[in-house]
Amino acid sequence: MKILIVGASGTLGQAVAAHLGRQHEILAAGRHSGQHQVDLTDDRSVQALFEATGPLDAVIATTGQVHFGPLQDMSAAQFDSGLQDKLLGQVRLALAAQHHLRVGGSITLTSGIISAQPIRDGSNATAVNAGLEGFVRAAAFELAARGLRINIVSPTVLEESAAAYAPYFPGFEPAPARRVALAYQRAVEGIQSGQTLTVW
Amino acid sequence: MKILIVGASGTLGQAVAAHLGRQHEILAAGRHSGQHQVDLTDDRSVQALFEATGPLDAVIATTGQVHFGPLQDMSAAQFDSGLQDKLLGQVRLALAAQHHLRVGGSITLTSGIISAQPIRDGSNATAVNAGLEGFVRAAAFELAARGLRINIVSPTVLEESAAAYAPYFPGFEPAPARRVALAYQRAVEGIQSGQTLTVW
Repeated sequence: MKILIVGASGTLGQAVAAHLGRQHEILAAGRHSGQHQVDLTDDRSVQALFEATGPLDAVIATTGQVHFGPLQDMSAAQFDSGLQDKLLGQVRLALAAQHHLRVGGSITLTSGIISAQPIRDGSNATAVNAGLEGFVRAAAFELAARGLRINIVSPTVLEESAAAYAPYFPGFEPAPARRVALAYQRAVEGIQSGQTLTVW
Repeated sequence: MKILIVGASGTLGQAVAAHLGRQHEILAAGRHSGQHQVDLTDDRSVQALFEATGPLDAVIATTGQVHFGPLQDMSAAQFDSGLQDKLLGQVRLALAAQHHLRVGGSITLTSGIISAQPIRDGSNATAVNAGLEGFVRAAAFELAARGLRINIVSPTVLEESAAAYAPYFPGFEPAPARRVALAYQRAVEGIQSGQTLTVW
């Protein structure tokens, strides 16, 4: 398969690219790195990406920022920054990808354990991740009619990032990125659609 | 209690105001109607609303638009319209309300059955409603530390709107708005927080 990974230079994206790259052709994309540069907050940038890649068998997003901070001090603009970057960014990629996937192709997005297990300062992250999971749940039924699938992987905190994020995730069991990468293989090579594949 | 209802002139808002108005003081707000006019997409408008109301015991939102349309034709801008109006609009209200509620006070938002039961053309609605439910799930824990609660009511299609929306909701059992209104009373007068109160 020909697989586009947006966010391929991140800790998770690298592991997904390495794992899927054993059996598939990987196109690596990122905001500032990889074979293709793309800004998921910009329609034209996403359109240009797919014009450059040509038809694909799978599109994976392992990217997106959310706002972390106390609810008490949060502004609507801060909350919107997570909606625009991670939520709408991944949705924009999916909306464009549906027109560039071969029949049987799939889209795989990324949420996170905070969707189900709220953490301090994480209300934007929970909303963004839950919104993405909702999008996938609904979009799957419309994509099915055209022979396409969509799923989302919800990782726990990565072992590689645990040192930096440990204060936010007390008592959370980290997973190595290479273990989380297995879920993307399940999503790409499996038959399911509309699913949240949790790795925790 | 002194209760602010934003969206009080809508089918659902009217029923909530009538039901809670039996025992509480209701302040009715809406974009173009009610005692107070407010635009939930505008920080200053929301700020002005709370300056006008003074301290409150409960804030309820029964308002917000989402985008309906086929996924195949959906643009990121259309998807964002639902994020900005219903999702960020209700979140903006909640973020401001937390600073104007008396201890023991509550916020009650509104999602909808589409969050859990996707319908044709409804991927934006599912994402928006799931995002709101996620926000409530996480925000509740931060609000609890300050003696405040937040919940969200997820109604099925309203009996009063069933004729207009019937083609979108095949086989869905409608509920009269006065029955849905009970869930807002449960949220306002109860002890729970972070809950999605389904009426279906």
